[in-house]
Amino acid sequence: MMATPVQQNIVATSEQYSTGFTKGHLALPPAKKYLVVTCMDARIDPAAAWGIELGDAHVIRNAGGSAVDALRSIIISQQLLGTREVVLVKHTGCGMLTFTNEDAHEVVRQNLGDGAAAELKQRNIDFLPFPHLENAVEEDVQFLKETKLVPEDVAISGWVYEVETGQTKRVV
Amino acid sequence: MMATPVQQNIVATSEQYSTGFTKGHLALPPAKKYLVVTCMDARIDPAAAWGIELGDAHVIRNAGGSAVDALRSIIISQQLLGTREVVLVKHTGCGMLTFTNEDAHEVVRQNLGDGAAAELKQRNIDFLPFPHLENAVEEDVQFLKETKLVPEDVAISGWVYEVETGQTKRVV
Repeated sequence: MMATPVQQNIVATSEQYSTGFTKGHLALPPAKKYLVVTCMDARIDPAAAWGIELGDAHVIRNAGGSAVDALRSIIISQQLLGTREVVLVKHTGCGMLTFTNEDAHEVVRQNLGDGAAAELKQRNIDFLPFPHLENAVEEDVQFLKETKLVPEDVAISGWVYEVETGQTKRVV
Repeated sequence: MMATPVQQNIVATSEQYSTGFTKGHLALPPAKKYLVVTCMDARIDPAAAWGIELGDAHVIRNAGGSAVDALRSIIISQQLLGTREVVLVKHTGCGMLTFTNEDAHEVVRQNLGDGAAAELKQRNIDFLPFPHLENAVEEDVQFLKETKLVPEDVAISGWVYEVETGQTKRVV
């Protein structure tokens, strides 16, 4: 198989990382029984920024750190793998603050054509952008508190990570 | 606000991490123009295992590292933030190998009640488990190659991470 520079980097890093790897005994369920929901943003390193040791916590990441989008994974984490706490972190400078759902649908149609636009509609995809950061954190925490699919005794907190400073501040 | 041990750890780590933080200048679009889709599993540290520097790549994580579940985020990454390559990594010992969709729905009903089961049905949630690891990698890569929502010139590779050894091996 041909390898791109990205793929070559994975092969090289894997060799280094696995040499002297000492964590092969960790159990499937997260040791500290919590899960993190955050954005896919390239400027976020959850393990380093929030002190997550290997084996501690599930880390769910998607565009915007959406709790709605993460619900399938959250249910599996809690009901099948025993986590009892949710940490939700959105961040400054998020791409989801910069467009509307209609903008994104139009970009797909222009870039990928009418067939792609039709598939987007058929799959009923909502891009879930948000116009205000702290409000979006509060709304996602509220969603998790209201859905019957998350038990009432789960601890839920909402935070903002500042990509400019590396700081994480609690919102709710 | 009361703080759980997990929340206290985030506050303490944030203070350390932001002290001397030197990456506040990074741009929103990933510098190396790729995205990673992988599992939320607690035993995976994508940055360390695959050599992802801060700012390099989007990292999307969900239960099982499902490309189908990640599609919304993948479209945003590619069409609005310019990524051109997908790295998909599933892993040994994945929880998604251990149950069926029907099992998970029954667990939700037993643990959370009929109201939760009804909400699950209303939201049309498929838990997306898979019975065979390598096949699931191949199927997800095939899905990304077939959907009109991913451009044909995007490089796509599929891998398995071994939680026992820390090694990552290419499948497709």
